[in-house]
Amino acid sequence: MKLQGIPASQGIAIAKAVVWSGNVESSEEVKIVADEVEREVQRLDQSIEKASEQINELYQQMLESVGEDKAAIMMAHLAFLQDPDFVGEMKRKIETELVDAATAVQQVVKHYVQIFEAMDNEYMRERATDIQDVGKRLIHLLTGRADDGRFQFDEPVIIVADDLAPSETVQLPREFVQGIITAKGGKTSHAAILSRSLGIPAVMGIEASLDGRIQTGDQLIMNGTTGEIWISPDQETLENYKKQLEQEKKRKKQLEQLRDLKAETTDGRQVKLKANLGRPQEVDAVVSSGADGIGLFRSEFLFMDREDLPSEEEQFEAYAEVVKKMDGKPVIIRTLDIGGDKHLPYLGLPEEMNPFLGWRAIRISLDRKDLFKTQLRAILRASAFGKAMIMFPMISHVEQVRQAKSILEEVKTELKQNGIAFDPNVEVGIMIEVPSACLIADALAKEVQFFSIGTNDLVQYTLAVDRMNERIQHLYNYFHPAVLRLIKMVIDASHRHQIWTGMCGEMAGDPLATELLLGLGLDEFSVSANILQIKERIRSTSFTEAKKVADHVLNLNTVEEVQQYLSQRLP
Amino acid sequence: MKLQGIPASQGIAIAKAVVWSGNVESSEEVKIVADEVEREVQRLDQSIEKASEQINELYQQMLESVGEDKAAIMMAHLAFLQDPDFVGEMKRKIETELVDAATAVQQVVKHYVQIFEAMDNEYMRERATDIQDVGKRLIHLLTGRADDGRFQFDEPVIIVADDLAPSETVQLPREFVQGIITAKGGKTSHAAILSRSLGIPAVMGIEASLDGRIQTGDQLIMNGTTGEIWISPDQETLENYKKQLEQEKKRKKQLEQLRDLKAETTDGRQVKLKANLGRPQEVDAVVSSGADGIGLFRSEFLFMDREDLPSEEEQFEAYAEVVKKMDGKPVIIRTLDIGGDKHLPYLGLPEEMNPFLGWRAIRISLDRKDLFKTQLRAILRASAFGKAMIMFPMISHVEQVRQAKSILEEVKTELKQNGIAFDPNVEVGIMIEVPSACLIADALAKEVQFFSIGTNDLVQYTLAVDRMNERIQHLYNYFHPAVLRLIKMVIDASHRHQIWTGMCGEMAGDPLATELLLGLGLDEFSVSANILQIKERIRSTSFTEAKKVADHVLNLNTVEEVQQYLSQRLP
Repeated sequence: MKLQGIPASQGIAIAKAVVWSGNVESSEEVKIVADEVEREVQRLDQSIEKASEQINELYQQMLESVGEDKAAIMMAHLAFLQDPDFVGEMKRKIETELVDAATAVQQVVKHYVQIFEAMDNEYMRERATDIQDVGKRLIHLLTGRADDGRFQFDEPVIIVADDLAPSETVQLPREFVQGIITAKGGKTSHAAILSRSLGIPAVMGIEASLDGRIQTGDQLIMNGTTGEIWISPDQETLENYKKQLEQEKKRKKQLEQLRDLKAETTDGRQVKLKANLGRPQEVDAVVSSGADGIGLFRSEFLFMDREDLPSEEEQFEAYAEVVKKMDGKPVIIRTLDIGGDKHLPYLGLPEEMNPFLGWRAIRISLDRKDLFKTQLRAILRASAFGKAMIMFPMISHVEQVRQAKSILEEVKTELKQNGIAFDPNVEVGIMIEVPSACLIADALAKEVQFFSIGTNDLVQYTLAVDRMNERIQHLYNYFHPAVLRLIKMVIDASHRHQIWTGMCGEMAGDPLATELLLGLGLDEFSVSANILQIKERIRSTSFTEAKKVADHVLNLNTVEEVQQYLSQRLP
Repeated sequence: MKLQGIPASQGIAIAKAVVWSGNVESSEEVKIVADEVEREVQRLDQSIEKASEQINELYQQMLESVGEDKAAIMMAHLAFLQDPDFVGEMKRKIETELVDAATAVQQVVKHYVQIFEAMDNEYMRERATDIQDVGKRLIHLLTGRADDGRFQFDEPVIIVADDLAPSETVQLPREFVQGIITAKGGKTSHAAILSRSLGIPAVMGIEASLDGRIQTGDQLIMNGTTGEIWISPDQETLENYKKQLEQEKKRKKQLEQLRDLKAETTDGRQVKLKANLGRPQEVDAVVSSGADGIGLFRSEFLFMDREDLPSEEEQFEAYAEVVKKMDGKPVIIRTLDIGGDKHLPYLGLPEEMNPFLGWRAIRISLDRKDLFKTQLRAILRASAFGKAMIMFPMISHVEQVRQAKSILEEVKTELKQNGIAFDPNVEVGIMIEVPSACLIADALAKEVQFFSIGTNDLVQYTLAVDRMNERIQHLYNYFHPAVLRLIKMVIDASHRHQIWTGMCGEMAGDPLATELLLGLGLDEFSVSANILQIKERIRSTSFTEAKKVADHVLNLNTVEEVQQYLSQRLP
C-alpha cells in the first residue's frame, strides 16, 4: 500500500514501524471505538509474541553469562505471558471497556501487582516485580515507550505518531530512529522543524498513522523528500529504495571529505560555518562535523522539563562543558529565549492571547534581573575556559541592548570583586529577529560586536504569519522579498560599522538560499543539520556571481519569482 | 477621597457614578464574599430608594398626561418596593446565599413572576408584569443595564466597571456617558482605544471601582488627562473642576469655527482630513464635523453580534446609506477585517495560538471567496450612489492584491451582465499594516490607487508587541524609529508611483504626531476623534519646517528622543 503525505524533512528511511498511540503518561487511559477492538487485540497478541521471543533470547544469553540459576527468572516472566488468565483479562478489558492494548496491559498489571504486594510473603512480592517487568516490556513494544515516558528501542524504527511534541522529538534516540511519520502537522510544525534539524527524514499529514493501516512491526519505506510512504512494499520497490539509500550514504561519505576544508567560495571569500546547539550532549557531533564553532547555543534546555530554576552552578557546568569541548572555537550562548511557545510553569508566565507577540526572551530577562544575572554569571565563568560569546534574543529597541549590557557590566564587576575568573573581552551580540531591529540596525551595530539573524521569527513578524498555523502556512516563506530586503539592510549596516552578521535560522541551512546569502554579504552561517552540504554549496559558489544574484533577487517582488530564479541556479 | 489611575482618554467629567457589576446576562449569578454583604445590602436599599423616587415622579407625570386611572399602575409598582416580604427576601438572599444585589433582585423577581403567572387569574397575571417592570428598574439602577444587556440612562453618568468589551463600549449612549472608569486595562486596552475614538474621558486601573469604595450614585470628578479621580469631592475641588470643564467647552467652540476651513499648512500644503467610521449611525456626526470624507469605513459592524452572515442586501443598504449621506465625498470601505481579536462564531474560525498572526482579514476573504464576492457586490452597488472606494486589509504579499483585484473584476463583470449600476472607476487601495507591505511598497503601488497606513497593527508586528498585552505595554509605541522609517518608505514609494498615502491608525489622531506626519509627506489623515484639533495643528504648521522636523526625527534612534523632540515643538 502506498500513501502520500507532506514532505517535511528530506531523506529516505527503510525500517519497521513503531506506532506510538500517544499516551505519554502511562496512567492515562486511552479509549477506543468498537471498530478498533480487533486491531488492539491483534496488537496485543503481536506484542506478547514478540515479548516471548525477546525473553527466550535473554534466557539463552543469561544461561551463558550468569548461569541457569539466575536465568530462571526469565522463565517466570515467560510464564506470565503464557498465563491465559493474565492475557485473557487484558483482552476482556479491550473488548468490554474499550481501551487500547497499552491501557489494558497497564491496568491488568497494576491490578496483579497490588494483589501480590498485599501478600505478606517474600516470594509473592518478588512476583510483583516480575509482572511489572513483563508489563513494561509489553507497553514498550506497544508504544515504543519505556515506563518513564521515554522512547526505547533496540532496532532501527520509523516512529508513527499522531504528533510529536518538541520535548519528545529531541528525546528520540538518533541511532535507532530512521524516520518520523505523523498524522498532524505540516512543513512548519515543530516536529518538522526539529526533524530537519536532527537530520531525520519526516513525512506529515498521514492519517493512516492512526487509523490502523500502519501497525507496529510493519515494514515501511518513507521518502521525506517526496512525502511517499510504502507499507509492506513489494520486493522490487524495496530493492529500489535500498539502492537509493546506498547512494545517499555514499554521498554522505563524499561530503565528509569536506570536513576539514574551509567554507570558502571559488574566488576566495571565506565565511564561517557553524552549528546550532540545543543540548550539551550534541557537542561531540558538532566537533566531529568540523564546524567553525557554535553560532547558536540555546540555553532553554537548562530551564525546561523541570520544576525550578537551574542554579548558577548547573548552568556554569553545562556552558563550560561545551566551551571546553569546542577547544578555543567560538561558542555563542544565547540568553534565555523563553515565552512564546516555550513555557516554564514554575516561572508563572501569564496566559497570553498572542504569546509570540508577548512577554518573552530579553523582555523577561530585563524584568527578571535576578534570573538574568545568574545566567550571565554562569556564562562569564564559562568564558574562562575557552571562547564564549553572549547573545541577547528578541531585541526590538536600542534601550534593551543598553540595559542588558549595563547588567552584564554589573555582573562583571561583581565577579572581579570576588576574584572569579572570566574573559574580560567576551564579545556581545544580538539576535536580529524583530523587524524593528533591522530598521535600526545602524544604531544597534554601535552597541555590539555581532548580529545573528533569526529568520524563523523574523519571517513570522515581517509577514504577520504564525509559522505553526497550518491554515496560513502558504504565506510563511523566508524568500519573501521583504525579508530579503531586511536581511540586506542588516548586513549592510553591520559592515558599515565593522561588525559581522551571521544567521542561525532555518534559512541558513537551506542550500537553495546559500548563493543568495553569500551575495548579500552574510559572514557566518550557523546551521542545525546539513553542515557539509552547505559547505559544498559555498565551495562551489563564486562570490562575484553571488553578488549579481543577490542584486537581481532584491529586485524581484514575489516569493515565487525568487524561488524559481534560485532553483534554476542549483546544480 | 482621591484616587490615581492610568490616564487613558483625555478630558474632564463630572457626574454621578454608575457601578456596573459585570453581569451582562441577567441570568448569570454573581457571587460575593462575606465582607461584601453589607455593601450589597446598602446598594439594594439605595436602588429601592431611587426607584421609589422615579416611580413617584412618573406617577405625577402620568396624572397630568393620562389621568389618575392609568397612573394608578405606578402605585402598584411602588407597593412592591414597600413590601417588606419582597425586599426582605432579596436581603436574605444576599446575606445567606452570598450573591450580589442585582442577582438577588433578579432571582426574587423571577420567583414572584412564576407564582403570579401560575395563577389562573387575569389580575394576578398583570401583577407579574408589574413586578417584572419593578425588577428591571432595580437591575437597571444597580448595573446601569437594561434587561437586554444594553446600557440605559436618563442622566449624565460616569460608568465604573471591571472592564468593558468593545461591543459594550460602542453601545454606550454618548449623550449620557461622560466618562469611563475601569479596574482592568491600560492605555492600549480595547476600552481605552474605543474611549479615545468616542472622545469619552477614561481612567483605567482603578481597583476602587470594584471594592466598594465607589458606589452607584456617588458624585465623581475624573480627569482622563492625569488619571485623577475624586469621590464625593469637596466644594472647592468641584468648583475648580467645573471651571475647567467650562474652559474645555469654550475651547471646543473655538475649534468648531475651523469646521469649514481647509486642512492646509501655513505655507499652502493641502492634505485631506477624514474620519474613521465604525457604524452607519455615526455618519451624521462625521458630516457635521466637516470631514473631507471617510478614510476608513469598517465593515465589521455588519458581521458582529449576530448569528449568520449579513445578506448582500443588508450590506448594500448600510454602505449606500453612508455613501449617500457623504454626498459625493469619498467613502473608503474596508473589506472584512475579522479574525485576530474579532471573532464571528458562525464562521467557525479556528482557535489559534497567535490570532494576530493568524487567519484574518484578506486571508479569510481570499479563502472564502463566496463571502468576499457578496461583500464586493454590495460595495460596488453602493458606489452608484456617490463616491465609494474599496480597501483591502492585512496585505502582506503582492499576489494577494492581484487575487483580490481579479475577484473584484469578476464581480464587476457579473454586475455588468446583469445590468446592475455601479461606479466602473471605483478606486482600489490597501491597508499598509504588515511590515512586509512597507518593504514591497513600490510593487504594491503599481497595483492600487492609494495606500492607507494602519499604525495600530503595523506597530504590533514591527515591534512584535501585542498592544493588548499589559505586561509589555511600555514597548508599544508608534514613535519607535523603525515604525517612522517604514512610514517614510511607504509614503515615498507611493509618491514615486503617483498615488497617495493616508493613515487611519491611532497615530493620525495624535496632535504630537501631526507635524512629523506632514513632514513625512502624508497626504491624508483619517481620525476617530479630535478631527478639529488635528485641523488646528495642520493649519498652524509650516510644511517647510515640518519636512526639516521629519528629517531630524528620522535620524533619532529611540522612542524617548523622538517624543521629547516633538513635545518641545508643541505650542
